[in-house]
Amino acid sequence: LDAADDEGVRELVEQLHPADIADLFEQVDRERRGPLAAAVRDLLDGEVLSEMNDFVREGLVDELDNVQVADLASNLDTDDAVAIIEDMEAEDQREVLRALDPDDRAAIEEALAYPEETAGRVMQRELVSVYENMMVGDVIDFLRDSQDMTMEFWEIFVVDARHHPVGTCALSWILRTPRNFAIADVMKREQMLIPVDMDQEEVALRFQKYGLISAAVVDSDGRLVGMITVDDIVDIIAEEAGEDILRLSGAGEGDINEPVKDAYRSRVRWLVANLGTALVASFIISLFGAAIEEMVALAVLMPIVASIGGNAGTQTMAVAVRALAINELTRSNTWRTIRHELAVAIFNGATIAVLIGIGAALVFGNPMLGGVIAAAMLINIVIAGLAGVFVPVTLERMGQDPAVASSVFVTMITDSIGFLAFLGLAVASGLVG
Amino acid sequence: LDAADDEGVRELVEQLHPADIADLFEQVDRERRGPLAAAVRDLLDGEVLSEMNDFVREGLVDELDNVQVADLASNLDTDDAVAIIEDMEAEDQREVLRALDPDDRAAIEEALAYPEETAGRVMQRELVSVYENMMVGDVIDFLRDSQDMTMEFWEIFVVDARHHPVGTCALSWILRTPRNFAIADVMKREQMLIPVDMDQEEVALRFQKYGLISAAVVDSDGRLVGMITVDDIVDIIAEEAGEDILRLSGAGEGDINEPVKDAYRSRVRWLVANLGTALVASFIISLFGAAIEEMVALAVLMPIVASIGGNAGTQTMAVAVRALAINELTRSNTWRTIRHELAVAIFNGATIAVLIGIGAALVFGNPMLGGVIAAAMLINIVIAGLAGVFVPVTLERMGQDPAVASSVFVTMITDSIGFLAFLGLAVASGLVG
Repeated sequence: LDAADDEGVRELVEQLHPADIADLFEQVDRERRGPLAAAVRDLLDGEVLSEMNDFVREGLVDELDNVQVADLASNLDTDDAVAIIEDMEAEDQREVLRALDPDDRAAIEEALAYPEETAGRVMQRELVSVYENMMVGDVIDFLRDSQDMTMEFWEIFVVDARHHPVGTCALSWILRTPRNFAIADVMKREQMLIPVDMDQEEVALRFQKYGLISAAVVDSDGRLVGMITVDDIVDIIAEEAGEDILRLSGAGEGDINEPVKDAYRSRVRWLVANLGTALVASFIISLFGAAIEEMVALAVLMPIVASIGGNAGTQTMAVAVRALAINELTRSNTWRTIRHELAVAIFNGATIAVLIGIGAALVFGNPMLGGVIAAAMLINIVIAGLAGVFVPVTLERMGQDPAVASSVFVTMITDSIGFLAFLGLAVASGLVG
Repeated sequence: LDAADDEGVRELVEQLHPADIADLFEQVDRERRGPLAAAVRDLLDGEVLSEMNDFVREGLVDELDNVQVADLASNLDTDDAVAIIEDMEAEDQREVLRALDPDDRAAIEEALAYPEETAGRVMQRELVSVYENMMVGDVIDFLRDSQDMTMEFWEIFVVDARHHPVGTCALSWILRTPRNFAIADVMKREQMLIPVDMDQEEVALRFQKYGLISAAVVDSDGRLVGMITVDDIVDIIAEEAGEDILRLSGAGEGDINEPVKDAYRSRVRWLVANLGTALVASFIISLFGAAIEEMVALAVLMPIVASIGGNAGTQTMAVAVRALAINELTRSNTWRTIRHELAVAIFNGATIAVLIGIGAALVFGNPMLGGVIAAAMLINIVIAGLAGVFVPVTLERMGQDPAVASSVFVTMITDSIGFLAFLGLAVASGLVG
């Protein structure tokens, strides 16, 4: 590429899988993505784009003209085409849609009409459905005769005359059943129907729980409108789980390919929020200015109480946020979870309290100081354990994403309680003042 | 259940999907799981057990006798049977294995011989393979005639005479191809072969990247020994992504069903490690005892510098850990990532520095104090951004899991630098001393 040997580059890239070509674009520097794209223009098909990191793709799509984008999108299943088009700006989106075939255009416009991250956006319209009165032989002939079904599929959906799904049939059953059986006798009647407006995270949990390969998506009238396949679900699960880590850390969409401007905007909000909570802690310290002046050891030790409390709170919070995300923590076991975390917190708190208490007493030659920090440590770790469950559970009940804001609240609580307990006990015990 | 109406309970539970029965066990209190198991003994099959949370299952399996466990395991695919047996104690494991059919026993013992979390543990031995010289019609007849193939499958594997995989064939292609075609002309030759000792996380990344439904597992001689299907991969991806959140927070295997004793043991280690790092920060503060005595405002403000620096470090660290986990951050773009995070850190640092600097100057009526805290804040956020990438990348290069220990190091760095920069600048600038 450096030698401007486009032909050579093309030859090397040609042998790669679309997913590897997408990776290649992610790995090279931003400035070199344009020339690379020019060198391998004809290999840069819709499949490569749909495998690409969102931010890298946006950069590339911006450089293509809209007719080219339409051309790429028309060769994809609806779900992949939507993934490429949904991130474009409204103006460009309209132009791309205009340049598409009427059929493709209608399908993509319909998908875009559903809210982001719902089943309607994720599903593909391309699927195989047969009527319930067909024989297995008819179904096989129908599959053989359909010229335009180039896609891979794993299950077929059986529908009634009103196009309502009544069952599913794995291809392996069809292959193993004689032609003269009715499809209605081979199919599985229980199936997981996905409403078109279901959140994608919920869809992913169903796939995971029931081990699904594909599932029928139905509209509000119960008609079959699309299917979701497990390969899309794999991406969603990986994405959602990754999002939780990033949200919990206040890093927004955090991605190493995210433009600096966007990363700044999403992260600085949380740092400012953290500044607010840190001020609360500072205010508490300021109430004890006289005590600190009298015994500077208090200033030396107080960050320990806050820091370990924060750490203990984060542990419990991570467990709770994770359990909420996979529907493991529900109303029926909230109290059991709180008791569980309380027990862990008491053991943890007692251990750390003994260590720091003895240590402080020895280093400063002041047993009273050791007692005060031990008591404050135990209190803060227990409060941290309770806050680690209460905060995310409350946010979830209020309809908020517990991963997004829990950290700020839990840290505020553990910092404030840490300083208040330690400095407050120091005064109350007569250690100072 | 409370009314000891076993018959009624059984009737209710009977209609549920195995995954829902598993959920039910997870939701009820520990003491009631025994009676519930007794009431629905015959519904409690291997499938229910394999869907269950590890900790809940262990509790139940402990109460069953080993012959019953063997009976349950024998009805499962190898991968699910292994999942149940691998967590049992060595003694019980041997007894269960003895009670199994020789065939099942050999398969499970072989699987247990592979290290945990490798392809060999996750794969199932049950699969459909055909020879490359067969016609499509032969394959269909072979599938119809095989009585014992009760499982679902999505692709068949084509092997040569030495049982080396040479291609795969989706069932949809077979269904649509006339009987007189050679299978070798229908199959796809490129396929992702999984070595039996590959780590399961790596296997999951391949499935995700290439959108696989199933993949052939080969031994060191390249022979087909099993297959991995996407439904197991879905569980692995969800599990691994969840693990990263928990590890990053120092919560070990963290699960609301984890026994208190285990939770205590895994979490207290990190709190003790955190105690060590907090002592480093305390030591730094203790060097500036005189400065704090002179100006108690320093003690009031110093936690802000440390706390926001810690938060900024955690943001960058989460982004880096996530990017490492999905192989997005590699040697070739490490420097680009560091420059990226440095740019974000400078913007974030400048913003927070201005806010806190002006605020401190006004509240304490001391512009010099405002300048000192602003400078310390900027320094700490920039250092935090660098540490947030360097620490996990270095751990990864050293062959460590970056999610496990990054937090402790990053927090130590941001706490120490926060106190050192703020108190050090206060002295160096002549504000105190």
